[in-house]
Amino acid sequence: MRWSLAYIPTLRETPAEAETVSHRLMLRAGLIRKLSAGTYSYLPMGMRVLLKVTRIIREEMTRAGALEVLLPALQPADLWKRSGRWEKMGPEMVRFKDRHGKEMVLGPTHEEVITQLIAGELRSYRDLPKTLFQIQTKFRDEARPRFGVIRSCEFLMKDAYSFDRNEAGLNVNYDRMYDTYLRIFSRCGLEAIPVEADTGVMGGDDSHEFMVLSKNGEDTVVRCSGCPYAASKDRAAKQGVGDSCPKCGKPLQQLPAIEVGHIFKLGTKYTEALDANFLDEDGKQKPFIMGCYGIGVSRILPAVIETHQDEAGIRWPVSIAPYQAVIVPINPPAREAAEWLHREALEAGLEVLLDDREVSGGVKMKDADLVGFPIRILLSEKTLQKESVEFKLRTEAEPTLLKTSEVVSRLKKLLAQQNGA
Amino acid sequence: MRWSLAYIPTLRETPAEAETVSHRLMLRAGLIRKLSAGTYSYLPMGMRVLLKVTRIIREEMTRAGALEVLLPALQPADLWKRSGRWEKMGPEMVRFKDRHGKEMVLGPTHEEVITQLIAGELRSYRDLPKTLFQIQTKFRDEARPRFGVIRSCEFLMKDAYSFDRNEAGLNVNYDRMYDTYLRIFSRCGLEAIPVEADTGVMGGDDSHEFMVLSKNGEDTVVRCSGCPYAASKDRAAKQGVGDSCPKCGKPLQQLPAIEVGHIFKLGTKYTEALDANFLDEDGKQKPFIMGCYGIGVSRILPAVIETHQDEAGIRWPVSIAPYQAVIVPINPPAREAAEWLHREALEAGLEVLLDDREVSGGVKMKDADLVGFPIRILLSEKTLQKESVEFKLRTEAEPTLLKTSEVVSRLKKLLAQQNGA
Repeated sequence: MRWSLAYIPTLRETPAEAETVSHRLMLRAGLIRKLSAGTYSYLPMGMRVLLKVTRIIREEMTRAGALEVLLPALQPADLWKRSGRWEKMGPEMVRFKDRHGKEMVLGPTHEEVITQLIAGELRSYRDLPKTLFQIQTKFRDEARPRFGVIRSCEFLMKDAYSFDRNEAGLNVNYDRMYDTYLRIFSRCGLEAIPVEADTGVMGGDDSHEFMVLSKNGEDTVVRCSGCPYAASKDRAAKQGVGDSCPKCGKPLQQLPAIEVGHIFKLGTKYTEALDANFLDEDGKQKPFIMGCYGIGVSRILPAVIETHQDEAGIRWPVSIAPYQAVIVPINPPAREAAEWLHREALEAGLEVLLDDREVSGGVKMKDADLVGFPIRILLSEKTLQKESVEFKLRTEAEPTLLKTSEVVSRLKKLLAQQNGA
Repeated sequence: MRWSLAYIPTLRETPAEAETVSHRLMLRAGLIRKLSAGTYSYLPMGMRVLLKVTRIIREEMTRAGALEVLLPALQPADLWKRSGRWEKMGPEMVRFKDRHGKEMVLGPTHEEVITQLIAGELRSYRDLPKTLFQIQTKFRDEARPRFGVIRSCEFLMKDAYSFDRNEAGLNVNYDRMYDTYLRIFSRCGLEAIPVEADTGVMGGDDSHEFMVLSKNGEDTVVRCSGCPYAASKDRAAKQGVGDSCPKCGKPLQQLPAIEVGHIFKLGTKYTEALDANFLDEDGKQKPFIMGCYGIGVSRILPAVIETHQDEAGIRWPVSIAPYQAVIVPINPPAREAAEWLHREALEAGLEVLLDDREVSGGVKMKDADLVGFPIRILLSEKTLQKESVEFKLRTEAEPTLLKTSEVVSRLKKLLAQQNGA
């Protein structure tokens, strides 16, 4: 791809609306733009990252045996009344009447819909277990949307639901999702810590949140300095936890964090309310034992940026970078070699961006750092005299000189290593 | 994938709610389920088809130089008032007030949002042309939703928007999208006819609809029996066209059809209303010249089914089939060979489904035909005595006997041919 044909409206100045570093960088690097309070458009660079994140999630969910579905955002209020959440959800749930006067809801989540769906379809214990997932837009009428796409009114979520015969089956599915979540976040370059969590309006017994420690996090993790105990602040408060660890008595730390995932053992809360039963081996009708598993897909972007940036801009992990490398010819004589390199890299199946703009080398280098491509390949008259390029990782301070003819094989080797990691 | 782990709830009986063959088959083959009037859940088989269709669209739009974005479904009413469509849209547009009393809209389309977006970003003629697209959920409060996902209240759409300096540029982009649409539909196995169309509430000058002839179509194509003239019924009515062709005078036919795409030359309607200007080479501010291009993504499924089915079920084109082939062991002694074949096919990167259910061979064959996998590989005691399988295309009446050891290479060859076509 050529920069001149792409659409990367970088900003020199920091937009006044942005309070956190990830919000600032998502605007400045041309990843998103605000439409109105709590709603954002993803521009091409942001969209490329979002597509890579969804691909990783899809691969890992499929590997874990989950099946992909797509459920409606428009939901009849009736279902929510039957589950008892019509009242509980409060003003965050968008409600309206359709043209026939029927009460509708814009789905903030899909426990009711999926439970009603499978109630008619999975009839026997032989059909179990099943885990279904979707990657879909959710709506939440936030009182105070903030931090860009971290707390917005419309966001992309991966939600999954498991259905089992018994608690033992639920435990197996829950543990599998727990492990799958660690894989997903790790592939996205995130260090996400699982912590004990409160179940809130979801209900159910057991729950874990996946937290990325970050000074701009809205949530708080309570973590023991001496043992593996870690919980969300809400959970710790409900447990009556004070300054010392309930497990070992050592001092607790309170750390700000961004929640990127949340898993729940729901049990029979929804299946009993919505009459979703299966015929068990003993000939009895029983409610399905349910789990639910969410990932804030859009939120992964700011969580990665909060933990992968410096004063110059974003430092994308290779796995979700909009492009793996940017080719920067910094003066006209370097153009021809840059074009050749671009063609060679494309032919080798690499995702490279050629900065073909007629702007100064300084602007190109600033933009490359701001948008945060993992690798920068700089060509100048000087490097070409040595039949070389300056090859620089975004995470390293200094470039190394590399023969132009060796760039593509070096890129391939490097990407194979990093993607495999 | 194993049938026992998949989720393919086929129905023997025809659901009462379904009026058309595609609606019946989408329900019977376990592709979709109704949630409420005009809203449907996609089950795993339907979702696999939907993902393949979106992949084709994404590839072809990218090949045509369009850049992918994602725009909010929640839109401020203010934007629609500025464009003048707040009144024009009528009760089909979902409107509600958010918790702060602000009037909002659930986007039925995105001309206003994209125009406002680029107004702040594309400043110079040097930034043009640009075409942006998204694959996103649209909402329309239909008075009478019907025919399953053909006319529903929530549906997946690919919408694209081009921005040019002048009419000549718009014409180039329009023609490129016209060709791209023909490629997309053709890759999905659809014969879509471009016809002159009315511009309706979109406004603008020139417009074409892409129509799939089908006896269950809601739309009508008026086509000349003697020359290439073809128009939508609305357009023909506005032109005052009667029973004979306005071009050559020969008799006109009226044919039912399903609209799968619609492209418009919008001109400056939205860019003038929303004050979206660029600085041209002559130093003057001018409104962008705009085009917009829609594909009814969800609607492609029923359009394909209407034109690819027989009494036994669906006949998926290979390019968008949920699985390319189904392996059917019809009695226990064939299981081991079926398992071996399944493993070999997976290792070769093929998308095959192994029907490992403990049901009769008759049920398996009926379901294979109903769901409509392009290839059926049947193994029985009889075929195995000849170290062979029955290899049958869904579109052919009779199977051929094929050595078990040759199945995978035969599949690979066949799929390469059909996908390349």
